[in-house]
Amino acid sequence: MQNSALKEEALRLGQSAKSAARELAPLSAGEKNDALLAMADELERRSALLISENQRDLDAAKNAGVSDAVLDRIALNAGRIASMAGGLRDVAALPDPVHEITKMWRRPNGLQVGRMRIPLGVIGIIYEARPNVTADAAALCLKSGNAAILRGGSEAHYSNQAIGSVLREACAGTRVPQDAVQIVARNDHALVNELLQLEDYIDLIIPRGGEDLIRAVVANSKIPVIKHYKGVCHVYVEADASLEMAERICLNAKVQRPSVCNAMETLLVHEAIAAKFLPPMIAQLQAAGVEIRGCERTCALTPNIVPAREADWSEEYLDLILAVRVVRDLDEAISHIERYGSEHTESIITASYQKAREFVERVNSSAVLVNASTRFNDGGELGLGAEIGISTSKIHAFGPMGLEELTTTKFIVFGDGQIRE
Amino acid sequence: MQNSALKEEALRLGQSAKSAARELAPLSAGEKNDALLAMADELERRSALLISENQRDLDAAKNAGVSDAVLDRIALNAGRIASMAGGLRDVAALPDPVHEITKMWRRPNGLQVGRMRIPLGVIGIIYEARPNVTADAAALCLKSGNAAILRGGSEAHYSNQAIGSVLREACAGTRVPQDAVQIVARNDHALVNELLQLEDYIDLIIPRGGEDLIRAVVANSKIPVIKHYKGVCHVYVEADASLEMAERICLNAKVQRPSVCNAMETLLVHEAIAAKFLPPMIAQLQAAGVEIRGCERTCALTPNIVPAREADWSEEYLDLILAVRVVRDLDEAISHIERYGSEHTESIITASYQKAREFVERVNSSAVLVNASTRFNDGGELGLGAEIGISTSKIHAFGPMGLEELTTTKFIVFGDGQIRE
Repeated sequence: MQNSALKEEALRLGQSAKSAARELAPLSAGEKNDALLAMADELERRSALLISENQRDLDAAKNAGVSDAVLDRIALNAGRIASMAGGLRDVAALPDPVHEITKMWRRPNGLQVGRMRIPLGVIGIIYEARPNVTADAAALCLKSGNAAILRGGSEAHYSNQAIGSVLREACAGTRVPQDAVQIVARNDHALVNELLQLEDYIDLIIPRGGEDLIRAVVANSKIPVIKHYKGVCHVYVEADASLEMAERICLNAKVQRPSVCNAMETLLVHEAIAAKFLPPMIAQLQAAGVEIRGCERTCALTPNIVPAREADWSEEYLDLILAVRVVRDLDEAISHIERYGSEHTESIITASYQKAREFVERVNSSAVLVNASTRFNDGGELGLGAEIGISTSKIHAFGPMGLEELTTTKFIVFGDGQIRE
Repeated sequence: MQNSALKEEALRLGQSAKSAARELAPLSAGEKNDALLAMADELERRSALLISENQRDLDAAKNAGVSDAVLDRIALNAGRIASMAGGLRDVAALPDPVHEITKMWRRPNGLQVGRMRIPLGVIGIIYEARPNVTADAAALCLKSGNAAILRGGSEAHYSNQAIGSVLREACAGTRVPQDAVQIVARNDHALVNELLQLEDYIDLIIPRGGEDLIRAVVANSKIPVIKHYKGVCHVYVEADASLEMAERICLNAKVQRPSVCNAMETLLVHEAIAAKFLPPMIAQLQAAGVEIRGCERTCALTPNIVPAREADWSEEYLDLILAVRVVRDLDEAISHIERYGSEHTESIITASYQKAREFVERVNSSAVLVNASTRFNDGGELGLGAEIGISTSKIHAFGPMGLEELTTTKFIVFGDGQIRE
């Protein structure tokens, strides 16, 4: 396809999204919720269409010989469609952040100054695999007053197109313009690159997927990108920790769902309790199927474990593998985290007020926990209601992003004739 | 210079800044203020050095034949050095945003969740002309706990180097590491481009200068950029406005300092009062030296004005020139602002509660004012204490950026053994 035709197609997407964003911004929560509930109903009503379009993706994937795990991620069925619809209804039930006045103060000259939340405008989301992201992301953008341009992976192309059409059709008869949700129809990376140049039309890009996808987006985008590279999360067990609590939390942080970014990847243990804590802890983890890669001192304490190589300390396994290191004290634990960590999620297990305070103040990761599992670094668990992703860049949002993080604030100023001297 | 040597030099700057940022982050307000006050004293004590290095820049500029206006912007003298030092003392007197807990709540499972302000880390500032920016920007970054890499314009090269050395020397004997402030010594655009690739070491880039500089930075940076392209600011005078107040505010917004981004560039007037309001208003503006470029209806109402061309509506004059348009009503005024504006600053002059409310809700610029001059869109005037710039991108900060906008928040979570079910 001609480059100029691609540019035009990208521009059309950007322009119609920007125009929809302007119609969307002033809508009330009720008006936006009407559309979200209509979308939920319509997804359920049209489930035969969704399932047949999904079958085209599954057939193509089978022909391409993808793994069963990938097939399972792509597949839609009545249960998954109901759960997508349920997600839309959950978002409708969340409070609307738009128009909230977060602060208000008075200046000596009598001006009243405040900050009011407003939508960002147009958000581009580039994602892979699971088609439910199409509905989830569209709903979070819509509720926060933003128009969304969605570009899913080629492996779910037909499913995403079908979900998109159903969501758009559901807008008819509501105050939400159809172009508030646009699905990129063309399966072409060059078009994505054209979209990434449209800084006058798109306000934010959120890539969701593997590190390669995200790095490519960051390298090519003129539009701000909120990104999440990886989560190398640590639990540090202090000398005074309750060992029973430490065991429970470490087991949960590693094995409850090892494939996600907030699972523990490295366990750090104070040397004073290593001999007592590690052997039974490691036995428990091994019983749960975890492969241990230990530092020298860990290897000396427990049989049958793989010595950790230097690369293990910065590895995001996303699997039943755990690196374990014995450290001298809190200082060494924090140095280790600063050197090898990804500023994602770290937890200390301690009975000491002073150590807890020090860890929380000195460790600057997106979530820093005391006596709790790293698995709580999640928008829903932290009370944001929902999340569109977790940011490990510090600009705009750091950590889970809920509806508030999809807004910005404008200054509002009420005067009675003030001029600047 | 070899590309690999440039890469190494950039990397050294980034690494030492990141290491300084880690030392800086936990410091108390008092520790940071000690350094700021020492810097202020040292600038005054070393004024002879600063003035003689500044003379080298002035000589080079004269040889290059630059205008008197540019020479004046570069020049340092005892008064300007005192004012730089005063700026540092003002920043020391501001409240420290770091470690502030902005919110705290409790989850049903007993977890206490909060958000704590932390520094961004390392901030790169790329700027032109006035050497006082070196001291101002370093101070705001330091107070907010961030290390700064400063790269000023070549026309103030020696002045910036001298100011930088004095600031760094002043850190000796304080808890602030010298590398918290680094001035790029090499006058080479290729080095800036290498810095813009260092997303693992630099957290934010703030370019300050002309639109060309800013666009080049955005196009080349892998690091998030907070930018300010231009301010095409509007005042809209409603049919029911107090004409005396409207005159006073418009005169102030246009002529009090026409060269800045929050000066009015376009005046919109409701048709019902145009015939009464515009002729004396335009006469007053013309008496103050303002050239008027009017729409057809404006031209019909007043003699001796230039008809506006289409391009005038989106022009940032930064000069004693004003575009004037008569509009049918508030809707047309808002459409005009959406079409031609830059989302910077807009003000409505009205006596109507309803119109004021509608304008404030519907116009999504970084500052939206009622019955006040656009000139108030400024960090100091709005009560932020100081500003490092005004952002017209909506990500992270929208509008003036003070110390809070140079921070982010991390989630802090206090548990007593909670695990995820």
